[in-house]
Amino acid sequence: MLLNCDLGESFGAWTMGLDEQAMAVIDCANIACGFHAGDPDVIAKTLQLAKQYGVTIGAHPSYPDLQGFGRRSMKLSPHTLTNTLHYQISALDGMAQCQGLSVTYVKPHGALYNDMMADESTLQTVIQAIAHYPKPLKLMILATAKQEQHKQLAAKYGVSLIFEAFADRLYTDEGLLTPRSLPNAVHNKPALMAQVKQLVALGSVTTDTGKQLPLKADTLCVHGDNEASIALVKEISILLTQK
Amino acid sequence: MLLNCDLGESFGAWTMGLDEQAMAVIDCANIACGFHAGDPDVIAKTLQLAKQYGVTIGAHPSYPDLQGFGRRSMKLSPHTLTNTLHYQISALDGMAQCQGLSVTYVKPHGALYNDMMADESTLQTVIQAIAHYPKPLKLMILATAKQEQHKQLAAKYGVSLIFEAFADRLYTDEGLLTPRSLPNAVHNKPALMAQVKQLVALGSVTTDTGKQLPLKADTLCVHGDNEASIALVKEISILLTQK
Amino acid sequence: MLLNCDLGESFGAWTMGLDEQAMAVIDCANIACGFHAGDPDVIAKTLQLAKQYGVTIGAHPSYPDLQGFGRRSMKLSPHTLTNTLHYQISALDGMAQCQGLSVTYVKPHGALYNDMMADESTLQTVIQAIAHYPKPLKLMILATAKQEQHKQLAAKYGVSLIFEAFADRLYTDEGLLTPRSLPNAVHNKPALMAQVKQLVALGSVTTDTGKQLPLKADTLCVHGDNEASIALVKEISILLTQK
Amino acid sequence: MLLNCDLGESFGAWTMGLDEQAMAVIDCANIACGFHAGDPDVIAKTLQLAKQYGVTIGAHPSYPDLQGFGRRSMKLSPHTLTNTLHYQISALDGMAQCQGLSVTYVKPHGALYNDMMADESTLQTVIQAIAHYPKPLKLMILATAKQEQHKQLAAKYGVSLIFEAFADRLYTDEGLLTPRSLPNAVHNKPALMAQVKQLVALGSVTTDTGKQLPLKADTLCVHGDNEASIALVKEISILLTQK
Repeated sequence: MLLNCDLGESFGAWTMGLDEQAMAVIDCANIACGFHAGDPDVIAKTLQLAKQYGVTIGAHPSYPDLQGFGRRSMKLSPHTLTNTLHYQISALDGMAQCQGLSVTYVKPHGALYNDMMADESTLQTVIQAIAHYPKPLKLMILATAKQEQHKQLAAKYGVSLIFEAFADRLYTDEGLLTPRSLPNAVHNKPALMAQVKQLVALGSVTTDTGKQLPLKADTLCVHGDNEASIALVKEISILLTQK
Repeated sequence: MLLNCDLGESFGAWTMGLDEQAMAVIDCANIACGFHAGDPDVIAKTLQLAKQYGVTIGAHPSYPDLQGFGRRSMKLSPHTLTNTLHYQISALDGMAQCQGLSVTYVKPHGALYNDMMADESTLQTVIQAIAHYPKPLKLMILATAKQEQHKQLAAKYGVSLIFEAFADRLYTDEGLLTPRSLPNAVHNKPALMAQVKQLVALGSVTTDTGKQLPLKADTLCVHGDNEASIALVKEISILLTQK
Repeated sequence: MLLNCDLGESFGAWTMGLDEQAMAVIDCANIACGFHAGDPDVIAKTLQLAKQYGVTIGAHPSYPDLQGFGRRSMKLSPHTLTNTLHYQISALDGMAQCQGLSVTYVKPHGALYNDMMADESTLQTVIQAIAHYPKPLKLMILATAKQEQHKQLAAKYGVSLIFEAFADRLYTDEGLLTPRSLPNAVHNKPALMAQVKQLVALGSVTTDTGKQLPLKADTLCVHGDNEASIALVKEISILLTQK
Repeated sequence: MLLNCDLGESFGAWTMGLDEQAMAVIDCANIACGFHAGDPDVIAKTLQLAKQYGVTIGAHPSYPDLQGFGRRSMKLSPHTLTNTLHYQISALDGMAQCQGLSVTYVKPHGALYNDMMADESTLQTVIQAIAHYPKPLKLMILATAKQEQHKQLAAKYGVSLIFEAFADRLYTDEGLLTPRSLPNAVHNKPALMAQVKQLVALGSVTTDTGKQLPLKADTLCVHGDNEASIALVKEISILLTQK
């Protein structure tokens, strides 16, 4: 199971995340494209780090909302959403090619990610946008109880999916993440490590009702915010290598 | 001599220029990339028009200044300018490829264009940025008294230049445009048509001191702002066809 | 019944609306504050026109979405919405005071206006934000079947309401505007003039089900987009004067 | 001698500086107004901290350049610069009044500050903009060898100046700061403390040529970036109290 992480989320004079330390311990970098974070310099620097550490590059496009960090849902028409995705993927992919690299997948960011998981017409727009992009790109989405259905929808447009799971979040019976506002939504470390083990060994998570929900995850979403999260990624990485 | 025109300079709810009418009468469209004008929807629409009318596509990147329409000089480091160019060219080129099209040249916009013509180190940064772009792109710049020197500089980095001339502007002896603030800076229609004829027939312009300055222009910059400018482009087009 | 109009909606190099012609025929200008349209120069110019024509000044704040012209709903927390309103009202009001003028009311723009009319908690946030502003400001909202209820809600916080009606839009039985996507949503000129007459003479509109809905409107929203809309405002103005 | 510090320079999801810790040890907060940093939420929070710690509030307006953090010089016309200042001061001042506070001075930020100190016509535009603001505001600028001349220029427009000095920077004979790119431009701690002592005791600094340059500083610019700078401010504060 690969480790993916949102990176390149600094902007101008503002720094976010320990990108270099994270690059050293992950497999796939979801790189911000300038609409919720990232600017041309940040993107160039992040790509250079991905190259240095041999990390796979994904585009991490967002609603156009720098102030809200792409975390506020915006009602974009399918047409506008498609163009907004194409613009961001293109910008990142071209800059990647300037360094001899290439974007291979797309993981929508923040509110767009949530809207895509909650609303099938948004997911379909995202899939179609990726299908119309001039080179093959995979789409990274949440592995939920509907993952087979999502795979079929994507296949209709010739798009492959990468399913991700979360180590640190409590799941619902539908395979969605319980809202952060609820108690127990975010696991403590023992629960987190247990969830990783269960995902790897049994291909399932234990939901908030105690149910065993089968989830086939290709990748685990991890965080590079600070020293503690980097340390945690290292532990998860060791755990995964042992399996 | 080809006709080039700045297009795709609408933004969001704001419309600028008669893009479709202009596309019908020009050869090369310099398309805004989102930093001084243009947004993903405007870019997609402009590319679709370029496709419909078989117009050659150039990227028209700018300083990041939407409010100032890229007309205000900004002191960007060579590193930042390079990344800023790569980001914009990439965004446009990827979106072009989504429609089966391809960007073939770059013409910097506004203050960046002026800074590039006034300051050789800026020109060199622009040329190097284009040289490092992962596919061959030409650079469109002003044909001046230094055009041979500029050609050699570009050749050093393997970049081809497209030289443009202006029909409606009075030239200095250096082959630069006299500032708009000066009287006679902008030609009336007879003077404009005469300048086009002279460029085509003699390969020269008459400067503000009365001198005949040789200029080898590959393309003429025209405007699609309103009905009057479109009519003028048509007249220039007929004049050029007669030659 | 006063005439109000959205103005100052140009931005940078982009012009929108015939602001000077509109100022000459209206009573109240809802002036964009820079978040969906307007920039410091546009605001200064619009205020100067309002001064010249003796027009009452209202702030026209929006969600922060220049590209979407404030027409896309965004999920802002009440806290952020409050600060977003205070920032915009303050910016406009201070600039008005620089010209010896003063903002006297607030009319939210676009998606924020719609959200406020559709969702009472958003309306309450807007009312409270205005109540906390350091000088008394009225709030302009749509006169609907709930206008008494809205008046009471606002009164609870010491805020006065200005109720506006639309001349050119077909109403539902709830006193809301039928969506533009529906046929007949926008009146032709005879229907529009008839609606104005009815509003003035009977204090009611005829809804899409044929019902007579009483609406007490203090002001009529008119448009200054182009020559045709300016001509229409003049006719409405004459009609109102005759009453 | 009062201590002033640039604060409120976070933006959206990005945090910059230890604002609360800085507020506890300074006298005057130069608060970003949204053009290089700060957004409505950040501004509201920063003002609340200023209120809590009884700190005097100044507006810290900038060129409109979020990505460049206002550190890149932009060629704004005097007209546009004036409106840009009025907009930002107004936004901050209105939001301050929402909390029962009031802006009492203006300190331009970054490249605008440098341009103002290097170019008298820019300084004059800034002074005139402040003079036209509807309430009296002081202008904070660098105390240089020209400080008497600057005081007279400001007095012509009825504007009072607050002169600031830097503890940590080496001065030129003109009383300007030596560029950070030069060796010795930034003092180590002993040199810094010595410069503070000299400013207080003798009203002078020792320049890069060894000259004693008289400077009458009303305030010292300090930084709240991290724990080390906060600790330094505390030491400076103790030193100043002893005098």
